[in-house]
Amino acid sequence: MTQKAGSLPGEFEIIERYFAPLARLQPGAQGLQDDVCIYSPPAGFDLVLTADAIVSGTHFLADDPPDMVARKLLRVNLSDLAGKGARPVGYLMTLSLPVDTETDWLDVFTRGLAEDQQAFGFTLMGGDTIATPGPLSLSLTAIGLIPKGHAMRRNQAQIGDDIYVTGTIGDAYLGLQILKGLFTSAAGEGRDFLVDRYRLPEPRLAIGEALLASALAHASMDVSDGLIADLGHICSASHCGAVVEADAVPLSPPAHAAVADLRVPLASLITGGDDYEVLFTADPAHAGAIATLAQRSGVAITRIGQIVSSQSGTFRGAVVRNPDGSILSLEATGFRHF
Amino acid sequence: MTQKAGSLPGEFEIIERYFAPLARLQPGAQGLQDDVCIYSPPAGFDLVLTADAIVSGTHFLADDPPDMVARKLLRVNLSDLAGKGARPVGYLMTLSLPVDTETDWLDVFTRGLAEDQQAFGFTLMGGDTIATPGPLSLSLTAIGLIPKGHAMRRNQAQIGDDIYVTGTIGDAYLGLQILKGLFTSAAGEGRDFLVDRYRLPEPRLAIGEALLASALAHASMDVSDGLIADLGHICSASHCGAVVEADAVPLSPPAHAAVADLRVPLASLITGGDDYEVLFTADPAHAGAIATLAQRSGVAITRIGQIVSSQSGTFRGAVVRNPDGSILSLEATGFRHF
Repeated sequence: MTQKAGSLPGEFEIIERYFAPLARLQPGAQGLQDDVCIYSPPAGFDLVLTADAIVSGTHFLADDPPDMVARKLLRVNLSDLAGKGARPVGYLMTLSLPVDTETDWLDVFTRGLAEDQQAFGFTLMGGDTIATPGPLSLSLTAIGLIPKGHAMRRNQAQIGDDIYVTGTIGDAYLGLQILKGLFTSAAGEGRDFLVDRYRLPEPRLAIGEALLASALAHASMDVSDGLIADLGHICSASHCGAVVEADAVPLSPPAHAAVADLRVPLASLITGGDDYEVLFTADPAHAGAIATLAQRSGVAITRIGQIVSSQSGTFRGAVVRNPDGSILSLEATGFRHF
Repeated sequence: MTQKAGSLPGEFEIIERYFAPLARLQPGAQGLQDDVCIYSPPAGFDLVLTADAIVSGTHFLADDPPDMVARKLLRVNLSDLAGKGARPVGYLMTLSLPVDTETDWLDVFTRGLAEDQQAFGFTLMGGDTIATPGPLSLSLTAIGLIPKGHAMRRNQAQIGDDIYVTGTIGDAYLGLQILKGLFTSAAGEGRDFLVDRYRLPEPRLAIGEALLASALAHASMDVSDGLIADLGHICSASHCGAVVEADAVPLSPPAHAAVADLRVPLASLITGGDDYEVLFTADPAHAGAIATLAQRSGVAITRIGQIVSSQSGTFRGAVVRNPDGSILSLEATGFRHF
């Protein structure tokens, strides 16, 4: 077979040209010349490990900017680490590339990786590149560090805890609708803001680390499947219920406008997913300390409800209460892959 | 959409039914109820990290037995760990499943994982399951432990070192030819042996650990791309050359018969890949200790040649010398993905 212009070089050239530079600051990766990475975890720390896979056509589109695909993949995993208060160390990534992938795509993709590696202070540690007869797909395992024995888990919510969420909810849902052409009324700055929030989440690493260091949170995780679905995960793991006050859910001005003026249901925003904010529960006695943490970090942290007993039978899992006391009806609680 | 019989349940049911049992012995995985795994590395150890991806149609066939696909994926990564003398701890796995994947497939696939988890004493730590419009593909990150600061790398070969390889070379290449219908002369027990060697490699974990513990090896890695290609990697990382004696390459009786009776070129066997043996170099003074190690482990360890200077200009990279002193011509040194 003749190699057409712009098509991929050999596996070892791909590693050498595109990936070895990304592992330069990780001595144990040995410039990706070995097929393993040796990593010495610092004493007194536990590892936080998380893995995600994405595939073209489902999680991103074939003509999405490759640097944005790269940065979102990193950030989605960094958000998992943020939800646990972990400091990112590095990642291993496997790429399944269609044989007609252009080198331009890899150029821009790895430029995106480089940009966010620098922004978040972590590096490539290893991986694998294979040819696939199917669509381009990517898998990433991220590694972070937390002080030994201090993990913030999903299953530590206590009845009576306040429920908090960082940033705003529903922006990414609206951004995706705009990209799908389904939400055409949005325009101008608001439109760009929502699309950016979908394309490039901001992992709340500093808040996660601060929550862990200050021992303020009981249960903690990041919101990726949808606010109510993920709160449901906390409830199920912690054997409790949760009541969210509908009018307390933090919305950005464009999202607020979408609800108020364009009649987008709040239910869509809180079940839409892709928010990548930190959701946590804390003893009400810590409200002041949490407000201080929010001020210092420059990111809003909003109390949205309370953890309740699941014994009552009234509130199983997470429910949303309207200002009039009625329960908001939710058709689905979040994104399902199947 | 109606769900047809045998098709996949929801993501959380898949985790609960198929994957949570595989993480049962890994307390930090919390029954896969959290989206991260917390792992406490024991003091005094470094981590060995490796990642591989495989896709249906390239690395395995859609109708391959799913338990064999699972076990081979685990073993290929265990072999990477074996090449470094690492003790396996666990793995994170992402699955990209076509929506028409049958639950039967997952049943048998996870049974294969369970079988080899038990055989090799390691567990699932986390992962992700997504739906793909493309072929079934799998990505795995394996984690092993080695005593701190004692890594056996590719770049430590010394001029004058003996070159050793475990087991036999070329069986998997012949097994794959049989499965492809390209090598029809093989029959009976020999045929089954070769196919088994392709389908189910035996990671040389005990030998790797023993080599590391005894500090007998300079450079070490597993043979996956082909004996000569991987020896070339050692040469390139160690800035040296290598001479392999053609008649020293260890062949199984069926592989020997293929060369002697069926005129399969030796060059095909030593460039074919998928051997998953350990390739290492050692000071000739250690020959006796290495023979003892082989006896104790019950696996052959064969001296196949010597590390030489790359300065001479005669031997760049790894070359194979025929008994008459001529150099064996090799068209390609090993498997290339692109």
